[in-house]
Amino acid sequence: MPLSTYDKLHSLSKTTALLDSIQNLLDWDQETYMPKGAIELRSSQIELMASLVHRQSTSKAFTKALAALIDIKTGEIVDSNLPLPQIAALHRWRRDYLQAVKLPNAFVKKFAKTTSAATHAWQTAKEHNDFKAFAPHLERVVSLSRKKADILGFTEHPYDALLDLYEPDLKTSFLTPLLSKLKISLTQLLKEISAKPPFPDEFLYRHCPRHQQLDFAHKILHKMGFHPSTSRLDTSAHPFCNGTHPKDTRMTTKVHLENIMANIGAVMHEGGHGLYSMNLPVEHFGSPLGQPISLGIHESQSRWWETLIGQSHPFWEYFFPLLQKEFPEQFAAVVLEDFYRAINLVKPGFIRIDADEVTYNLHVIVRFEIEKGLIEGTIKVKEIPDIWNSKMREYLGISPEFDGQGCLQDVHWSLGFIGYFPTYTLGNLYAVQFFETFEKAHPKWKENVSRGYLDFITDWLKENIHRHGRQFGPGELCEKVTGKPLSQEAYVNYLNRKYGELYL
Amino acid sequence: MPLSTYDKLHSLSKTTALLDSIQNLLDWDQETYMPKGAIELRSSQIELMASLVHRQSTSKAFTKALAALIDIKTGEIVDSNLPLPQIAALHRWRRDYLQAVKLPNAFVKKFAKTTSAATHAWQTAKEHNDFKAFAPHLERVVSLSRKKADILGFTEHPYDALLDLYEPDLKTSFLTPLLSKLKISLTQLLKEISAKPPFPDEFLYRHCPRHQQLDFAHKILHKMGFHPSTSRLDTSAHPFCNGTHPKDTRMTTKVHLENIMANIGAVMHEGGHGLYSMNLPVEHFGSPLGQPISLGIHESQSRWWETLIGQSHPFWEYFFPLLQKEFPEQFAAVVLEDFYRAINLVKPGFIRIDADEVTYNLHVIVRFEIEKGLIEGTIKVKEIPDIWNSKMREYLGISPEFDGQGCLQDVHWSLGFIGYFPTYTLGNLYAVQFFETFEKAHPKWKENVSRGYLDFITDWLKENIHRHGRQFGPGELCEKVTGKPLSQEAYVNYLNRKYGELYL
Repeated sequence: MPLSTYDKLHSLSKTTALLDSIQNLLDWDQETYMPKGAIELRSSQIELMASLVHRQSTSKAFTKALAALIDIKTGEIVDSNLPLPQIAALHRWRRDYLQAVKLPNAFVKKFAKTTSAATHAWQTAKEHNDFKAFAPHLERVVSLSRKKADILGFTEHPYDALLDLYEPDLKTSFLTPLLSKLKISLTQLLKEISAKPPFPDEFLYRHCPRHQQLDFAHKILHKMGFHPSTSRLDTSAHPFCNGTHPKDTRMTTKVHLENIMANIGAVMHEGGHGLYSMNLPVEHFGSPLGQPISLGIHESQSRWWETLIGQSHPFWEYFFPLLQKEFPEQFAAVVLEDFYRAINLVKPGFIRIDADEVTYNLHVIVRFEIEKGLIEGTIKVKEIPDIWNSKMREYLGISPEFDGQGCLQDVHWSLGFIGYFPTYTLGNLYAVQFFETFEKAHPKWKENVSRGYLDFITDWLKENIHRHGRQFGPGELCEKVTGKPLSQEAYVNYLNRKYGELYL
Repeated sequence: MPLSTYDKLHSLSKTTALLDSIQNLLDWDQETYMPKGAIELRSSQIELMASLVHRQSTSKAFTKALAALIDIKTGEIVDSNLPLPQIAALHRWRRDYLQAVKLPNAFVKKFAKTTSAATHAWQTAKEHNDFKAFAPHLERVVSLSRKKADILGFTEHPYDALLDLYEPDLKTSFLTPLLSKLKISLTQLLKEISAKPPFPDEFLYRHCPRHQQLDFAHKILHKMGFHPSTSRLDTSAHPFCNGTHPKDTRMTTKVHLENIMANIGAVMHEGGHGLYSMNLPVEHFGSPLGQPISLGIHESQSRWWETLIGQSHPFWEYFFPLLQKEFPEQFAAVVLEDFYRAINLVKPGFIRIDADEVTYNLHVIVRFEIEKGLIEGTIKVKEIPDIWNSKMREYLGISPEFDGQGCLQDVHWSLGFIGYFPTYTLGNLYAVQFFETFEKAHPKWKENVSRGYLDFITDWLKENIHRHGRQFGPGELCEKVTGKPLSQEAYVNYLNRKYGELYL
């Protein structure tokens, strides 16, 4: 096989990746340092880059280079003697290509225009708790999303086509029973916990100065394996990770002066995303072998660090004394056990992004059930507030008083991100199922972590997950790492064990 | 005339400007926040954007749109009923276009590769004071620059073709006597000053904390007319202004803890560049009517603020008490008159960027005479150190002991920027000649400035210079504003008056 043919394809694809990385920088800058008055300019810049990315990824040259290696119609590999990773890469390239060319330009533009207007309307509607003002916009988004599903194509369920955009090959028929079983276990556990008295946690909300908070965050990131020569941490209105390239990983957090744990949680969450980006093989930058697998797998990395490590006892055995040293007024009088209980307090709330490990996925399930119904046509947009509120009462035992803390809280639907929410829960499930394997490889992980060593975790994740890029699909990777398909079992066992010890 | 034809051209040109503005952001980020390890990625990103800018600005669509309005060969305007500013814009577009298409792609690449290697070699050579190691690189740059002049074309002097890249229509035959006369006046003044005892200035070098320095810098920028919604100030290794768009002006400074005046000088210098960018008419963004005229005119704006205002007595009548309040330990015991003298101390030194108003242009003249000789072929690269040192002794009375503080101090030649240095001096001359007109319009400017009003200056500059974009050439603007062509007279008079009062 002429390697040069593959390399040529990679080179063309690298140009797309470069354009994409520039668009990422525009996004990052917009959220961090851009003067607010430059927003119109920035929108034009981003729109231009997006069109260049699309043009490059569907160019004649790229199409020709791809077709020389894989039959675009059938997916048949021209030379089956190619190494397996390269064969996998060709399948991913083909998948992306088909997705990119399927949606007509006119549709993409209409979708962008509609969601842009919807996002604008959503902001105002959220401020005024006015779902009715948002409803006609959401109706248009839903209608276009169903059309999108039709264009992209599906065999079983239209929602499959949307899920596939974020989690390749995920099927509604797989997801529905999975989340259904998870819901039963979570609501059961939540009932048991709710019968117990809550832990005191007021001391978590003591004022901690901004600069000290950021210094502490940097200490954690350093222990996780970050270095300032290839990464940075800034602040923005909403924390995010912009993992443009293994040598340029940019994370942000938000400093809440009266809630340092929100900052630390965000830093470890984005840090988990960041390590994934940082550990992708740089020599494959611009090819699927240098890309992350899916949103679900990405989220497994962020939740791994945020919850499985960052809310674990051994982690704070090491870090709590440092926290006390940095913030003596706030924490010197607090005992580690009380701190550990407080950061793991289970308390049903209205807001998904503030939710604890037990209730978080119930928030996601509410959204999943509604958006699936919207795509199926069994739920109408105008019914959303009532359905939302009754599901919240049923699953979490509380019901929002206004839509701003209910069905208007998330931006996703206005952006047209239907099929996205489930990846949050998949992330949690993947994380714990991966962790089971990790524990077998590192039975003494608690001891190591309690001494402040985190790099062996980063190494394990790199070796087992990051370094493969997109060689495997999400389900494939799960089986490869854990020996079984994804299920809710590991997660439910983990919660029952952890919160059993804490509460019961 | 169908306005839409002009608008179409503007629209195509706007895409080029957008690409260019994105490249500017990549540059800005590289100097401010980019993790150092991302430099290879960044080089690829910048190279890609540069090629897209070139492709867009010479595309078939653009060529066609331009040719519909102006004969590209002859420069004849198709419809002479167009408004004058639009006619001027067409001439500028044609000029840029011809420049862009004249240089063959292969030459541009070779030039970029040669200067990239030369810059690399220059850095090492400067560190080791090893001109010989740099010489072969500079020889290649000079040889390619002469070739560049041949390709671009000239009628009188090959150096004209290079000057024209930075200062449109500037001729060696105009510049040579101008700088020659200036040199005579400057060396004369310097001799007179050197006979006098120097002013004490040790108090300028007292430690001033970083954050306070930056706060003070922001106060000055605010008074100059900047607002955080459309501009920002950061720090970088070398101060610069990245004026991408009127709504996104980014300046940087460098904080010297033991030299606050270096910081203030840099901030006012970059602020002057920034105001020019900020006050260009935003509706013409992407057309010549929304662009700055030339490097010389740009430099006139920065030097105006840095020297004519920032080193003036009335400015410090207002700001010195504020400086004393902010830095009482450092300045409370200093008298305004002593401070004013100290910041205007004339003291020949080896380094151009540290030079005072009297010696600065002599540094430029040394470089001009040498690079002109290089292009003419009357000076050989290997002769540079000797010629440099003897010129320094002749004009400034001092001679560097090693090439790092002599002919290796500037990056320009290694970058292939031959013809650039004179624009620094042109900036000084333009600034003072403009200032003469300004003084007539605002005879009480000193009184106003001493009360802390600076906005009337910004307004005057906007009205007389900024708002025109590139409607006029540099010489044309000079005549329009000052009623006469550029000469050294105003500058020499200004120096003789100011330093006469200070010293003689």
